[in-house]
Amino acid sequence: MRGYYKADPWSIVEEGFDPSMHMASESIFSLGNGRMGHRANFEEHYSGETLQGTYLAGVYYPDKTKVGWWKNGYPDYFAKVLNAPNWIGIDIEINGEQLDLHQNEPLEFRRELNMQQGYLERSFALYIGEGRLEISSRRFLSMKRDEIGAIRYALRSVDFSGEVSFTPFIDGNVVNQDSNYDEKFWEMEETGAGKGTGYLVARTRKNGFVSCMTMGYNLWRNGSAIEVEPETEKRDDYVSNRVTAKLGIGEELILYKYVSVLTSMNHAPEEMVPAGRKMLAEAMETGFDLLFAEHTGIWEEKWAHSDIIIDGDTAAQQGIRFNIFQLNQTYTGKDERLNIGPKGFTGEKYGGSTYWDTEAYMIPFYLSTAREEVARNLLIYRYKHLGKAIENAEKLGFTGGAALYPMVTMNGEECHNEWEITFEEIHRNGAIAYAIYNYTRYTGDRQYLAGYGLEVLIAISRFWRQRVNWSDEKGKYVMLGVTGPNEYENNVNNNWYTNKMAAWTISYTMESLDRLAKEDPGAFKHMIGKTSFDLKEEIAAWREIVEKLHFPYEENKRVFLQQDGFMDKEQIMAADLDPAQRPINQHWSWDRILRSCFIKQADVLQGIFVFEDEFDLETIERHFDFYEPRTVHESSLSPCVHSILAARIGRSDKAYEMYLRTSRLDLDDYNHEVDEGLHITSMGGTWMSVIYGFGGMTVREGLLSFEPHLPANWKALSFKILYRGRTLLVNIDKERVTIENLAGEGVDLFLAGSQVHLEKSGSVVAKL
Amino acid sequence: MRGYYKADPWSIVEEGFDPSMHMASESIFSLGNGRMGHRANFEEHYSGETLQGTYLAGVYYPDKTKVGWWKNGYPDYFAKVLNAPNWIGIDIEINGEQLDLHQNEPLEFRRELNMQQGYLERSFALYIGEGRLEISSRRFLSMKRDEIGAIRYALRSVDFSGEVSFTPFIDGNVVNQDSNYDEKFWEMEETGAGKGTGYLVARTRKNGFVSCMTMGYNLWRNGSAIEVEPETEKRDDYVSNRVTAKLGIGEELILYKYVSVLTSMNHAPEEMVPAGRKMLAEAMETGFDLLFAEHTGIWEEKWAHSDIIIDGDTAAQQGIRFNIFQLNQTYTGKDERLNIGPKGFTGEKYGGSTYWDTEAYMIPFYLSTAREEVARNLLIYRYKHLGKAIENAEKLGFTGGAALYPMVTMNGEECHNEWEITFEEIHRNGAIAYAIYNYTRYTGDRQYLAGYGLEVLIAISRFWRQRVNWSDEKGKYVMLGVTGPNEYENNVNNNWYTNKMAAWTISYTMESLDRLAKEDPGAFKHMIGKTSFDLKEEIAAWREIVEKLHFPYEENKRVFLQQDGFMDKEQIMAADLDPAQRPINQHWSWDRILRSCFIKQADVLQGIFVFEDEFDLETIERHFDFYEPRTVHESSLSPCVHSILAARIGRSDKAYEMYLRTSRLDLDDYNHEVDEGLHITSMGGTWMSVIYGFGGMTVREGLLSFEPHLPANWKALSFKILYRGRTLLVNIDKERVTIENLAGEGVDLFLAGSQVHLEKSGSVVAKL
Repeated sequence: MRGYYKADPWSIVEEGFDPSMHMASESIFSLGNGRMGHRANFEEHYSGETLQGTYLAGVYYPDKTKVGWWKNGYPDYFAKVLNAPNWIGIDIEINGEQLDLHQNEPLEFRRELNMQQGYLERSFALYIGEGRLEISSRRFLSMKRDEIGAIRYALRSVDFSGEVSFTPFIDGNVVNQDSNYDEKFWEMEETGAGKGTGYLVARTRKNGFVSCMTMGYNLWRNGSAIEVEPETEKRDDYVSNRVTAKLGIGEELILYKYVSVLTSMNHAPEEMVPAGRKMLAEAMETGFDLLFAEHTGIWEEKWAHSDIIIDGDTAAQQGIRFNIFQLNQTYTGKDERLNIGPKGFTGEKYGGSTYWDTEAYMIPFYLSTAREEVARNLLIYRYKHLGKAIENAEKLGFTGGAALYPMVTMNGEECHNEWEITFEEIHRNGAIAYAIYNYTRYTGDRQYLAGYGLEVLIAISRFWRQRVNWSDEKGKYVMLGVTGPNEYENNVNNNWYTNKMAAWTISYTMESLDRLAKEDPGAFKHMIGKTSFDLKEEIAAWREIVEKLHFPYEENKRVFLQQDGFMDKEQIMAADLDPAQRPINQHWSWDRILRSCFIKQADVLQGIFVFEDEFDLETIERHFDFYEPRTVHESSLSPCVHSILAARIGRSDKAYEMYLRTSRLDLDDYNHEVDEGLHITSMGGTWMSVIYGFGGMTVREGLLSFEPHLPANWKALSFKILYRGRTLLVNIDKERVTIENLAGEGVDLFLAGSQVHLEKSGSVVAKL
Repeated sequence: MRGYYKADPWSIVEEGFDPSMHMASESIFSLGNGRMGHRANFEEHYSGETLQGTYLAGVYYPDKTKVGWWKNGYPDYFAKVLNAPNWIGIDIEINGEQLDLHQNEPLEFRRELNMQQGYLERSFALYIGEGRLEISSRRFLSMKRDEIGAIRYALRSVDFSGEVSFTPFIDGNVVNQDSNYDEKFWEMEETGAGKGTGYLVARTRKNGFVSCMTMGYNLWRNGSAIEVEPETEKRDDYVSNRVTAKLGIGEELILYKYVSVLTSMNHAPEEMVPAGRKMLAEAMETGFDLLFAEHTGIWEEKWAHSDIIIDGDTAAQQGIRFNIFQLNQTYTGKDERLNIGPKGFTGEKYGGSTYWDTEAYMIPFYLSTAREEVARNLLIYRYKHLGKAIENAEKLGFTGGAALYPMVTMNGEECHNEWEITFEEIHRNGAIAYAIYNYTRYTGDRQYLAGYGLEVLIAISRFWRQRVNWSDEKGKYVMLGVTGPNEYENNVNNNWYTNKMAAWTISYTMESLDRLAKEDPGAFKHMIGKTSFDLKEEIAAWREIVEKLHFPYEENKRVFLQQDGFMDKEQIMAADLDPAQRPINQHWSWDRILRSCFIKQADVLQGIFVFEDEFDLETIERHFDFYEPRTVHESSLSPCVHSILAARIGRSDKAYEMYLRTSRLDLDDYNHEVDEGLHITSMGGTWMSVIYGFGGMTVREGLLSFEPHLPANWKALSFKILYRGRTLLVNIDKERVTIENLAGEGVDLFLAGSQVHLEKSGSVVAKL
């Protein structure tokens, strides 16, 4: 709903409580610290509509596959993003009545997600009889101590007098709404409750992840800690302490709740209870304010190199910061076993943690805003899954070390079960190969390619080789039965993007083999025994495929065709669609969508974006003009690519429209689904649309290049780029672009079309 | 397993008990009478592997749809063939020990399905200690009284002496193995047990079908009825009577069990208990032997006009009789609300009762072997579902009275939920249109077309019109995104068979409108208000589509191509497949199947079969030689069509191979799945392969034509054909074909290529 959240450069602010927007707000105000996260559920009981969600990075549940019509090759399970025990709970009673904002209408309700400092705050007033009470809570998940969360829950009496109970609890009785067969995913192992403390250990069924949550709290009145004897409660799946205190006129009661959240990803199960207790004790000793200061310190560092400043457009400013904030909450790059799920820590939907989104949309962000290790860890993640990708390909009949990376995964195994996607949306393999190139090109790190990347490239090239076949009819190699990035076409022949990715992967593999053989003949040594290949035979076959792969092309319009037969479709423009029929995926049956020419997300244009340096502006423009009007942008991954290309060809208004759509997709809920969680992975695309689009950053002839195109209503744009040990500060305004070298050696760049040298600690300027 | 059942012209015989074959035999020995049926489960307790199955015609359960990835347009439910309360049960105790053939190994076990008289008989011997007991049971479902079943269960002592208990029961505690969510489908309404009787009334959840089963029995010793006080048991879901008697050496005890089986299809629920009791009393008064005689009398009549006699080939003889027997057990044509499910009364699998199989494979059989009303009722069934077919099309975005008949249905609503089938396998609409033509042409009944058929034709033609679109690229109409009869291709463009069916339907609709306008201008009157159409506008549009519809064609090989792009596939022959990889649907992933050239079942050849008179023999041969080697026949509906075409072009060995495959598909379990039930609908195809293939029957220039081609090992073939009031007896041997007119007026025919006149009561002969 446009305008529901107040425009603010650093915060998302909700003023007034609208229960119908609550689930959307639960998504928007989500918190995370890379290790864990949760939706913005209320601490206290809420009987209205809510999606309770607490998530632990890397912890998933292998839910039994649900499918109407089984196909050979489908996996047995789908890795669900797991709703974990709820540790934020603090039930409140006022004069013996349970507080429930669905029953007690709050006044002056305000909720704020402070992105600069990474906390969630909520405040409202209540009248109990004639007495006015002011309630507020603040919570954060420590960025410094990523297994610690803290909440300050305050009740201030203006003129109320009575009794207040706080019941901090941990609740293991949680479910996944998207459970396929309404099964419970957790078994309770152990609970304990003592005076001032409680813990709950739970274990996932089947795969046996263990989580241990330990809580502590203290109660303050008017600035001083007070001792209150708690009533403890301990059930199999719940622990709590209830503390009751008087609250007089003008007084304030504050409950500080601290929780340590440990999982078997990082702790031996048998040591978790004492470890959790110890960690909790340290946190409580540090105290809320110091924990908070540590936490905001990390956010300050993060913003220092990842912030983007837009002058003159608060909505755009808020949008980009929201995207950057969520990206930084979701993935910190510390742990190579983790990845970036489509909803991050903000919802259950889709499941799995890893899609091709990571390679296509996220790696560019982390490459330019975080230390090299972060993007590298994302590549290592895939490298470690190579064995599983080979098994996955074998299940589909491929042999000899060919790899097909999964569509959706947690641990490398395919989870998805829709033949037209699982078995056919194989361009994902290309994105994984391209990421190796992208990383290598950007960082200059050759060691990754020799030590890890090459094995992946060879396995993917082997897959492509087996996936094409020779067509006597065409006198070409063809790739039949695929689904491109545009999932509104299934089982098509010769998807241009997929063929392009395939040919490119093979070429890059051959090039890399060639270069390494020359530069570093020992580079293959570590691969002996891991992969065997008859280089000559394979390379000859690969070369022939690259030379003779079919690319559908329309001669009259001079455009690459999305697939064979695309021009047989009725050519209608999206603008001519009845608005009542949009989004078409909510109104049309699947066959109708499939046989229409409407495109869900960039497909040929995705390829043109990826391989931009192969195409001149006129070619880009021609393809943009052909495909964009047929595109309905019903994927969150679509507008960003269109925004970038539109900026490139000088379609400033279109670029800006698409930018708002991507950057404020969730804040303005374009797709009417934000209640299910945020579109985390498209946020990497948003970042690209600013930096690559308006900032005009590309890699040109091996050098970073900037050719900015500011939207008309922006006064200035400023951002930092980490590049091979340098920190570049880019300032763009209407007249000029300036780049300062804040740290690192001098570097050659292209600036507004000309090659320049940027000195160490120097700056360069170009007129626009 | 080839050879497991003894070859016999009139019976299926199993000798010796092999528990691993029991579920297959339960399918093979199934009984039915058009109103109800069941698998050949044992009467007494059996603790081994079994698929218990009792089915009631027209009674189904709307099971909640199970689907991994929902698509707009999917139905909410799938109509499951419902496993009903089990009424055949008779538990046996011998000296207090429960008889269980999984524990008590039977000797001299023999099971016979007597197809001539329509009963199931089972006999075996047991030693209890040293004492030999001989046990036999016979049961049938009355063809005369189709709500009555009867069982004779006999124990004869050779030298055993002891106590025997019989516990006839009705058990409502039954499940469907294919329940999507393990839900129970029945609720028990009422049970009652008295001396010598018991009943059980059950109601299906959600849709409220009611069944009432009432049992009675009597016990005989050595030829005389005896009175034994029963122990009655009545639970919510079970009723029984237990009767115990001494059995001395040389004595025989027989329990006759009679059951009336009523459903709310034919009875008001509140009257079912007394009605069931009355019907049961009448049956018991009639007695087992007379009931049996009535029943076999009906079978005698049925065989009198539907039998096919093959001289010189017992396996072929047994095969064709098994097919005819099952067809007659499954559908009698009395009730226009019923149809022919793929498994009939022999299993749960697939669900629904009505597929395009009915029109494509069953109607020919009933047209030629039963009174006209039977085929007509099958057409009326679809006519009555026209409204639902229009709704179904509307759900997919079609308008203006366009109809899409469902892929799978019970009551006209679509049940299927696989987009590539449900939404795209639309050639089914063509089969329904063609059946109207087929019926009209064969019977000469014009009234059906005017009164019913035309409405259906118009609605289907409207569908085709909206389903095609104009391709500027081709300068033709195209039909995108379909699945043809060959389901090993999905979402293809311009499936030749589907396009052919569409163009034909439109032409036939226009022709019919034209002819009726001339011959019977009043014919449309009854349609006013039901369907409105601007004849001129619609006909002009239809005509243009017929003229300009695209049909893919390969110029070099001069074959109609199954679809656009078929020649881009790697062209491998089925014979070159590794036998270990077959059937490919059990070994290959779906994408691999889809991009291969392998064909599941006749597709272009199906069209050539249907429209045979449009093609000369050389064309048929060319297409057969192109497509048959690429066909893996992994559908039960494939071999029959190939057998017919092979016979037509003189490929006698191929025709015979395909004939055995279709006629003994279940008896020899070609597809390793007979345990799930029989392939009932392919049995109509088997019949066609004898009559249309070897008998060479076609309709030529409006006259019946016979051009026989006997397989080399057949001495003679004889069958009857009902045709417009005549009964024609066709006798074919190596030298000649003779046709006798057993009943009805004289008629013109083609015989072995020449037109002849067959006099009333006369005969014609032609040399071969």
